[in-house]
Amino acid sequence: MAGLALSFGIGKLSRRQGSSTAEVLSGETITINEATLRRVVATCLVKAGADVAHAPLVADVLVAADRRGIPSHGVNRCEIYCAELEAGLIDGKAVPKMMAGCDGPGTGLVDGQNALGAVVSRFAMLKCIEKAKANGIGLVAVCHSNHFGIAAYWALMAQREGLIGMSFTNTSPFMVPTRSSKRAAGTNPICFCCPAGKDSFELDMATTTVPVGKVEVLHRKRQAVPPGWGVDRTGRGTSDAEEILMHGGIAPVGGEEQSAGYKGYGLAMMVEVLCAVLSGTSTVGPSVLPFTATRGAPVDYGHCFICIDPARFAPGFELRLARYMSTMRSLPATSPGSPVLVPGDPEKASWEKSETDGVRLHVNIAGSLRRLAERLGVEVPAELRNIKSGVAVDAPFASKH
Amino acid sequence: MAGLALSFGIGKLSRRQGSSTAEVLSGETITINEATLRRVVATCLVKAGADVAHAPLVADVLVAADRRGIPSHGVNRCEIYCAELEAGLIDGKAVPKMMAGCDGPGTGLVDGQNALGAVVSRFAMLKCIEKAKANGIGLVAVCHSNHFGIAAYWALMAQREGLIGMSFTNTSPFMVPTRSSKRAAGTNPICFCCPAGKDSFELDMATTTVPVGKVEVLHRKRQAVPPGWGVDRTGRGTSDAEEILMHGGIAPVGGEEQSAGYKGYGLAMMVEVLCAVLSGTSTVGPSVLPFTATRGAPVDYGHCFICIDPARFAPGFELRLARYMSTMRSLPATSPGSPVLVPGDPEKASWEKSETDGVRLHVNIAGSLRRLAERLGVEVPAELRNIKSGVAVDAPFASKH
Repeated sequence: MAGLALSFGIGKLSRRQGSSTAEVLSGETITINEATLRRVVATCLVKAGADVAHAPLVADVLVAADRRGIPSHGVNRCEIYCAELEAGLIDGKAVPKMMAGCDGPGTGLVDGQNALGAVVSRFAMLKCIEKAKANGIGLVAVCHSNHFGIAAYWALMAQREGLIGMSFTNTSPFMVPTRSSKRAAGTNPICFCCPAGKDSFELDMATTTVPVGKVEVLHRKRQAVPPGWGVDRTGRGTSDAEEILMHGGIAPVGGEEQSAGYKGYGLAMMVEVLCAVLSGTSTVGPSVLPFTATRGAPVDYGHCFICIDPARFAPGFELRLARYMSTMRSLPATSPGSPVLVPGDPEKASWEKSETDGVRLHVNIAGSLRRLAERLGVEVPAELRNIKSGVAVDAPFASKH
Repeated sequence: MAGLALSFGIGKLSRRQGSSTAEVLSGETITINEATLRRVVATCLVKAGADVAHAPLVADVLVAADRRGIPSHGVNRCEIYCAELEAGLIDGKAVPKMMAGCDGPGTGLVDGQNALGAVVSRFAMLKCIEKAKANGIGLVAVCHSNHFGIAAYWALMAQREGLIGMSFTNTSPFMVPTRSSKRAAGTNPICFCCPAGKDSFELDMATTTVPVGKVEVLHRKRQAVPPGWGVDRTGRGTSDAEEILMHGGIAPVGGEEQSAGYKGYGLAMMVEVLCAVLSGTSTVGPSVLPFTATRGAPVDYGHCFICIDPARFAPGFELRLARYMSTMRSLPATSPGSPVLVPGDPEKASWEKSETDGVRLHVNIAGSLRRLAERLGVEVPAELRNIKSGVAVDAPFASKH
């Protein structure tokens, strides 16, 4: 993380490539029992309007993000989900369904019915797994859904079944395409997870250079934004965090045109095609509504899930993949203290640490959750009761206006 | 292309995002009739050992690259293909076959039998198209193949059938992974093409920041390499072209770690998994042999082809995609003279221009082809006969040592 002098507290591997972990955990943190945290989150969601049969899944998805060291997609999002439920923007009781007449042996189309994104995604991924097992590969596209949390949660469902899992979603515009001065694509993640015996390959990446939260942290610290992260209102690269957050936007992976930002932009469009165009969502690209509780209508996100059965190909996939990953981790490193990693290494290290220590939350995120619980009349557990905190630090800027 | 003042000659859209077109065409160029060019290339390949039934396809793939404005993958590659054939590294007569026991309704595995990469890829993509039409989605993995040219050539086969086509290949190491000081991944391209009525979406991108050829051009001009393109022998970013080419390597998309280079590295590994690990090639990642005629053994590249039938999903895919692309092209532009593009726009503009003007080649590439033809006893057409040229300018550095 050259150029950013940040302290943090969850071990060497958490100096992770690309999450806002380091920044979010650079302040004071608390730890909380995982089951307790899931219960608080689920109860808040139920009070806000989620079905009691649905809330535990959503809570599990959010807590999983914190455990994996991705606090921007963790329980921090409980507040916006509850606000969306209370505003009637998400139907907390709805269940997704397969669209009639759109079913093939290896494919399916799900109408999310504006249910909670996690509920829709679980339904679609289970169907996709079934198709991949029968056909070798399956693809299920989804329309009329909502924010589905970390993409990896869904791909890992497939991985646990011995399959290669892929998950994609479109999101609300925050990326400014190459050559443009207007936000016209979301962070549109690409996720690709594979089993490898006791090891695993877990790539889960936004097609923007950085998440919005990273720019917000620099804004609070009044620090300059590194080159390539964001652009101003005219579409030109800037180091001014406030300009990026209020008027410009985040750059695609690759940054400016000279350093191949058009590749990140192209990948974001690919994700939009797989999620929104294929499934027939009502809005696509720049027309997608903002991820706020004041947007006035369902956000209608689309997702795409693909599963591949490696057993249909050359025998020994998992062993070969494990060897390949070991080879990459053993490459000579530029700095002795920073070994070469493969996708998923930082997340798995964070997960394991949460197993013994409990889930680590920044005090401000914990404080926001406590206030949310108090407002909704949910019992506040001891771990959240005595914390001192100001405003939430990592709520995506996009959700505040 | 901020920071690079280059002149070129094939129109506004050719100020393309990411090709080395501008650089290669910045010198003197010639134009040549497309059928003539294909005939010269095919005849050279036959003289070098390709089957007369195979050579025209390979020639078509190479000429298509030049027509699309990707000279690094164009007839420029005829020389290395011929050298590989003459050295017995490629079996110019071999035909690929389906691997028994590895066939699923939606999947297949092809043994390329060390045939010419184009011959293997056509066979595999035809099989993949068939599977997608029957099942909604198909995936065919390939082992024991060779360089397959531009990835888009294969995805476009699917697109012409009304399908979404994807193509991937692993390649010889030139990318230095994040945190490492050793070349350990290829340029590993991702290609995603979709039909959209009279329009089309055609993403074909290496997962490195730039192709090697772009650094070679700066080396010849003794200019500094922009930040994020390459690293030195210690794995640190450098502006020294010679150091990048001789000792370091090219950076993944995203550049250094701070600007999310680990995302390009992660995508390159994903492509390696889909192409090499899934199909069971004998070498993976850093072990893949160099793309030279002196490597002493078959290169054993793996490929992966995926086709998706959009007719299985929400009706009206092509219309929705055409509208989405129009919306993106109409976004406000940072500079009035540089409109916002979508993937494939520069390539299609170049292709159309070649339709009327003939295929444009840099004189040095044309000169190399002439010398190759002369050496192999192939009749040299008038367009190539009178050119003045020095050494080839765009042969990949990787193929020279």
